[in-house]
Amino acid sequence: MAKSRLLCVSLGLVLLFHGCLARSSNFEQFQNECQINKLDSIEPVTRVQSEAGFTEWWNPNSQQLRCAAVAVLRETVEPQGLVLPSFTSSQQLVHIVEGSGVVGMILPGCPATFQDSQPQQHQGGQFQRHRDQHQKIQRFREGDVIVLPAGVPHWFYNDANQPFVTVTFLHLGNIVNQLDRNPRKFYLAGNPEEEQKKLQRLQQQKQGTESEPQQHNECTNSLCFKPEYLAQAFNVDEDVIRKLQEQGKSGTIIRVKNLQFIEPPRVQHEEGRRGSMGDNGVYCAMKMKENIAEPELADFFNPQAGRITNLNSFKLPLLAHLGMSAERGVLFNGRARFQVVNQNGESVFDDYVEKGQLLTVPQNFAFMKRAGNEGAEWVSFYTNDNVKNTPMAGVGSFMQGVPEEVVAAAYQISREEAREVKFNNQNNFFFTSSSSSRPQPRAEA
Amino acid sequence: MAKSRLLCVSLGLVLLFHGCLARSSNFEQFQNECQINKLDSIEPVTRVQSEAGFTEWWNPNSQQLRCAAVAVLRETVEPQGLVLPSFTSSQQLVHIVEGSGVVGMILPGCPATFQDSQPQQHQGGQFQRHRDQHQKIQRFREGDVIVLPAGVPHWFYNDANQPFVTVTFLHLGNIVNQLDRNPRKFYLAGNPEEEQKKLQRLQQQKQGTESEPQQHNECTNSLCFKPEYLAQAFNVDEDVIRKLQEQGKSGTIIRVKNLQFIEPPRVQHEEGRRGSMGDNGVYCAMKMKENIAEPELADFFNPQAGRITNLNSFKLPLLAHLGMSAERGVLFNGRARFQVVNQNGESVFDDYVEKGQLLTVPQNFAFMKRAGNEGAEWVSFYTNDNVKNTPMAGVGSFMQGVPEEVVAAAYQISREEAREVKFNNQNNFFFTSSSSSRPQPRAEA
Amino acid sequence: MAKSRLLCVSLGLVLLFHGCLARSSNFEQFQNECQINKLDSIEPVTRVQSEAGFTEWWNPNSQQLRCAAVAVLRETVEPQGLVLPSFTSSQQLVHIVEGSGVVGMILPGCPATFQDSQPQQHQGGQFQRHRDQHQKIQRFREGDVIVLPAGVPHWFYNDANQPFVTVTFLHLGNIVNQLDRNPRKFYLAGNPEEEQKKLQRLQQQKQGTESEPQQHNECTNSLCFKPEYLAQAFNVDEDVIRKLQEQGKSGTIIRVKNLQFIEPPRVQHEEGRRGSMGDNGVYCAMKMKENIAEPELADFFNPQAGRITNLNSFKLPLLAHLGMSAERGVLFNGRARFQVVNQNGESVFDDYVEKGQLLTVPQNFAFMKRAGNEGAEWVSFYTNDNVKNTPMAGVGSFMQGVPEEVVAAAYQISREEAREVKFNNQNNFFFTSSSSSRPQPRAEA
Repeated sequence: MAKSRLLCVSLGLVLLFHGCLARSSNFEQFQNECQINKLDSIEPVTRVQSEAGFTEWWNPNSQQLRCAAVAVLRETVEPQGLVLPSFTSSQQLVHIVEGSGVVGMILPGCPATFQDSQPQQHQGGQFQRHRDQHQKIQRFREGDVIVLPAGVPHWFYNDANQPFVTVTFLHLGNIVNQLDRNPRKFYLAGNPEEEQKKLQRLQQQKQGTESEPQQHNECTNSLCFKPEYLAQAFNVDEDVIRKLQEQGKSGTIIRVKNLQFIEPPRVQHEEGRRGSMGDNGVYCAMKMKENIAEPELADFFNPQAGRITNLNSFKLPLLAHLGMSAERGVLFNGRARFQVVNQNGESVFDDYVEKGQLLTVPQNFAFMKRAGNEGAEWVSFYTNDNVKNTPMAGVGSFMQGVPEEVVAAAYQISREEAREVKFNNQNNFFFTSSSSSRPQPRAEA
Repeated sequence: MAKSRLLCVSLGLVLLFHGCLARSSNFEQFQNECQINKLDSIEPVTRVQSEAGFTEWWNPNSQQLRCAAVAVLRETVEPQGLVLPSFTSSQQLVHIVEGSGVVGMILPGCPATFQDSQPQQHQGGQFQRHRDQHQKIQRFREGDVIVLPAGVPHWFYNDANQPFVTVTFLHLGNIVNQLDRNPRKFYLAGNPEEEQKKLQRLQQQKQGTESEPQQHNECTNSLCFKPEYLAQAFNVDEDVIRKLQEQGKSGTIIRVKNLQFIEPPRVQHEEGRRGSMGDNGVYCAMKMKENIAEPELADFFNPQAGRITNLNSFKLPLLAHLGMSAERGVLFNGRARFQVVNQNGESVFDDYVEKGQLLTVPQNFAFMKRAGNEGAEWVSFYTNDNVKNTPMAGVGSFMQGVPEEVVAAAYQISREEAREVKFNNQNNFFFTSSSSSRPQPRAEA
Repeated sequence: MAKSRLLCVSLGLVLLFHGCLARSSNFEQFQNECQINKLDSIEPVTRVQSEAGFTEWWNPNSQQLRCAAVAVLRETVEPQGLVLPSFTSSQQLVHIVEGSGVVGMILPGCPATFQDSQPQQHQGGQFQRHRDQHQKIQRFREGDVIVLPAGVPHWFYNDANQPFVTVTFLHLGNIVNQLDRNPRKFYLAGNPEEEQKKLQRLQQQKQGTESEPQQHNECTNSLCFKPEYLAQAFNVDEDVIRKLQEQGKSGTIIRVKNLQFIEPPRVQHEEGRRGSMGDNGVYCAMKMKENIAEPELADFFNPQAGRITNLNSFKLPLLAHLGMSAERGVLFNGRARFQVVNQNGESVFDDYVEKGQLLTVPQNFAFMKRAGNEGAEWVSFYTNDNVKNTPMAGVGSFMQGVPEEVVAAAYQISREEAREVKFNNQNNFFFTSSSSSRPQPRAEA
C-alpha cells in the first residue's frame, strides 16, 4: 500500500493545525521560553458562549505558543450569527475550517465603495441621504484564508444554513505589535467582558499574581466613552449613544435575522489586483483572501499520495506585509502522525495530531509528517511570509545537495549505502510511492 | 457655539504632548508593561541646571513610557546658549516648542560643505589653511520638527533674543537601538555627569538596586581617552588635549557670545531634495526638518474648529528611515481634553492635558480629543512613520465603513438610529460644527 | 617613528577580534545587559574535542555578548577533517583565520548544479544513476569571510596539509531568529552531545538552575527520528537508517581520507553574480564569500601606517539580507591596543587585545585602536550591514564637521587651538604620520 510522508526542517515556526481529544499541556515554567524538551498537541482551554456561537482560546501562556509568539483562537458561528466588529494590535490569519459567510473590513482612509443607488425603503423621509454605503465586503467559504492586518476593524456574518468555524492566528511577535505579547481584542460593540476576564486569568496564572475580585463593568468595549462626548462626535442625541453603549447579552456573537448589505452578484471572480500601496502598507483595493482547499490549487500533487497547497506572498501579496504564510496538506491515506526532534536529537513529539488539535514546531526543529491508516488533512501557519522548509529526503533535499562521499563519511556508511540514501527516493520531498520499491518517475507536473 | 472633537483608534503608539501642573505617575510595577488600567498625563521628574539653560527628563521607567519604548526630555536654552555636541543610540524627533536657533549635525562620511572662501582674520599666519569649513547647519524656529538619526552627533545654538525650548522623543524600541531600553546620551564635550547620575538613579529605583556612592569623575564624556592617545589622533600637543578634557561647570548647555559660523543668507527656501541613499540610510543632502505650526501647512482645516498638520514620510522622507512621525493640532475653542479607553472598555484617562504635560496612548487604545473652553494645541508623536488613525465617527470613519444594518444589529438600535450614527456627522474625522445640528456641507478644501 | 591610530565612535556593535592569554570575564549579573562599566577581552570558555579538531565557544552568557546578542565560536580543523553538516536559527559570518579548505551549503529549493557526466567506478551496476550530483561547493582560504544565512545546512572539509581555523559569529538578535537568544546548532550527522551539554550548562549557570543529571542519549542529532519512519522517507532498508543514526565517536569533526567531490578547476574567478532573489531572500547563484585579507583589496591604505578592508553589502550583497558586516585592519607598527569609553566618560577598556581574544564594543561607545610596538591585525564584525563609524579626528571626522568657533567654545580652548584640533590631522581617519609634525599631504589615492 502506498504510504506518504514528509521529512523536513522548518525554517520558520510552524503551527500545524489539524482537526478532538483532550490533552492539556503542563510545561514547567522555564525562564527560557524555547528550551523545549517536550511538545504536546494542544486544545483550547477556555470557551466563551455567546448568543449565536462560541469562542475558544488556546492557552496563550503555554510554552510552545509563547516561544512562537503566537495566540490562537477558534470561533464557531451559528447561522444568522454576527461576529461583532473588533480589531487587534497584531497581524492575523483566519482559516475557514468549515462553512461559509461574509466578512467586512474597514480599512482606514479607504472610501466606502459599496454604494446603493436604489432608494431604500424607509419611513419618515426626513433624511437627505437615502442610500447606504459601506466598505467592501467579501464572501468566504471553507478552505479560505483571510488576511487581517493589525488595527483593521472587521466583522463576520453567517448568512448560510450551517455553522461556520474559523481558526485565527495572531502573530504577537511581529514588530507591528508595539504592545507586549499578551493577545488583546478590541471590540467596537458587544460585551466581551467574559472573554477578557478569562484571558486575563490565564495571564495572571502565569505571573502567579492573584486575581483581584473584579467588579462588573457597565460598558466593556472600545466605545465606552462618556455619552456626552460621543453624542458630539456622532452628532446624535445622547439617548442614541446610551443605546449604543448598552451591554446586551454576554458575548461577541449575536443573532441577527437576514442582515442585508450591498453586495455584488455572487459568482464574482476576484482578481489579485494590486492597488497602489497605502500608507500603512495596506491597500484599499487588494486581495485579502485565498482558498487553499480546492484540489486544483495544489502545488504538490500525487494521485496515490496526496497534495499540498502553499499560500505565500507570491499568491497573496499582502502576506509580505504581514510576515505570515500558510499551507494545507492532504494525505489520502493515513491520519497525520508527526514526529519532531530538537537540536539534541530528542524526540519532543511523536504522536497523531487529531482534528482540532494544534501542534507548534519551533524554528529549525526537524519534523516529519507521516501517514496513519486513514486520510489526513492539516493546515500549517508560518510566521514568515515565504517559508522554505528544507526537505531531508527526496528530490531537492538536504541529502541530495551533499556529495555522495560526504554522505558516506558523515554517516559512516558505505559508498553504496550513501547512494541509496541519497537517490532512492526520486520523488519530490512530499511523496514516495512505497517504502521498499525502487525509484519511480515523478507523477507531478 | 462650535465644538470640536476627534474620536480615533490609534494604530500606533501616540505620545500626545501639550504644554505645568505637577502630577506624578505611580504605577505598580507589573511584570507586564502594557497592562494599562490607568494613564496619567505626566511631567518631567528630573531637572539638570546648566550654565545657559536646563534639561528635564520624563521618567523613562514610568509604565507608559516603558510600554511605548520611548524616552522624552525637554531642554530650555537661553540666548547665547550652546547645547554641546552629543548623539544617542536611538532615533530622535526634536520638536521646537518655542524660540529659534541653529542646529548642526555631523553626518558620518559626508563632506564639510559649508566653506568660507574669505580669508579669516587671524594673527600668526603659521597655518596653511586659513578658512574654516564644516558640515551643513540649519536654522530652526517654533513649530519645526527636526529629525536626528541614531548616532549622528549634533549641537544647537541660540543666537536669538529669547530662550528656545525643545522636546525630544527618543524611540528606544526601534530596531536601530541595539543596546537595552535605557536612554543614553553620549556627549562629545562638556560635563554631563549630573544628568547621567540622575538618569542612572531612576533606573536603579526601578530595579530596586542600591545606588553605590559614586566618586566624582574628572572627565565624563565620550572624549575621555588617555591624553597621549588623543594627542596622536589629533596631531596636537597633549596640553591642548588636557584643555579639551577639562571639565568646566556642570552641565551640557554653556553660554557663548556671538558664535560665528558659515551660513547661507537667511531667507533660504529649503527644498526636499532627496540625495542618493547613504550607507546607513542617511543622506548627506536631504531635508532634516519641517515645520508643522504654520497654519498654511495644515492638512485638515475648518475655520470654525481648528486645524491638524501631519508630518509623515511623504513630507519628510527621512521619517521612513526613522519609523516615527508627528502631528500638530490646534483647536480654536477649548483646552484639549482627552479620554482614553482600553480593550476592556475601562476609561484609563479622562482629563485635560495641560501645557507641558505628556500623555501616552498605547497602540489601539481608543482615544478622543475634546474641546474645553479655551483654545488648545497639541503635538503627537508616533512610533510609526505613517500612522493612520482610524476615526470612529464622521467621513471615512469606522462607522461609515459598516453597513447600516450591521450597525443597527451590532448596537441593537433601530435602522433609523443607525443611519443617524452613521451619517449625521458629515464632516471629516476632525471637525463637527455642532453637536445637535443636522449634517452640514464640508467646509474644507 | 610612524605611529598609527584610529579614533572612532561605533555606530553599530563592534566585535573586535584579534589574535592567547587567559582572562576570564566575571561581570556581575545586571538586570540590565548593557549597563557596561568594564569590558574585558575575552577568550573561549569551553572546548569540545572531536576526532579531527576541536570547537571552542566564548561564553554566550557573558554580559558583553548578551548585550550584543551575539554568540561566537572557533573551530580548529585538522587536515582531512570533515565538519559534519549543521545549521542554526541565526545568521552567521564565518571568518577564516588561517588555512584553507572547502565549504558546501545546501540552499533550500536550489538544484544540485554540480554534476558529474563521467561514469563513476562502482561495482554492482544495479543503480540506474551512476553519477553523483550535489549543490555548489566552494574553496576558501585565509582571510575569507563566508556568509551563512539562517537555516542553511553546511559542511566544511580540510583537504589541505595544515589545519584551518574559523571564527563564527552568530547574530542571535536578528529578527530572523525566532527562538530565544540561546545559541543552538542543529547537527544533521555526528554526535554533538558533549557540545550541547556544555552549552546548556553555561545557560543554566546564568539562570541559577541546577543541572539535572542527564542520561546519555543514543542519538543526539536532528536525524534522530524513528528508524521505520526514516526508512520510508529515504526509501531504504531500516538497517541503513540504523547505521545513519549510530553515534560514532564524540564530536562533530571527523577524519576522512581524501574525500572526493565534483569541483570546477581550481583557478576559477568567482564573480559577484546576483541571481534572482529567492523566496527567503537567499539566492541559488550568488556570492557567498569574499576575502578581506589580500592587501590589494584594502579600502584605506598608507604605506607607512597600515590598511583597512571593509566588507559590506556593496561588496557582498547577501550581507544586506543578513544585517551584518565585517572589517579587517592591519597596523604595520604596533600591537593593537584599544581604549573604549562609555557614555559616562569612564574608560571601560584600555589594554592590548592579543591574538585569539575577543573584545565587544557596544553601540555608540567611543573606541580607539592604537599602535603598540609590533605589527597588529584585527577583524571587526558588525551587527549592521553597512556600518559607518564616525571618526573623531582627521579627514571626514566629527571634529572637522563642527565650526571652528563651536569647537573653541565647546572645549573652552582658543580659536587657534581649535584650528589645530580640527585641522592638524589632515590624513584620513585611520592614519597620521606622526604625533608632533605639522599636517602632511594625504598619501592615499
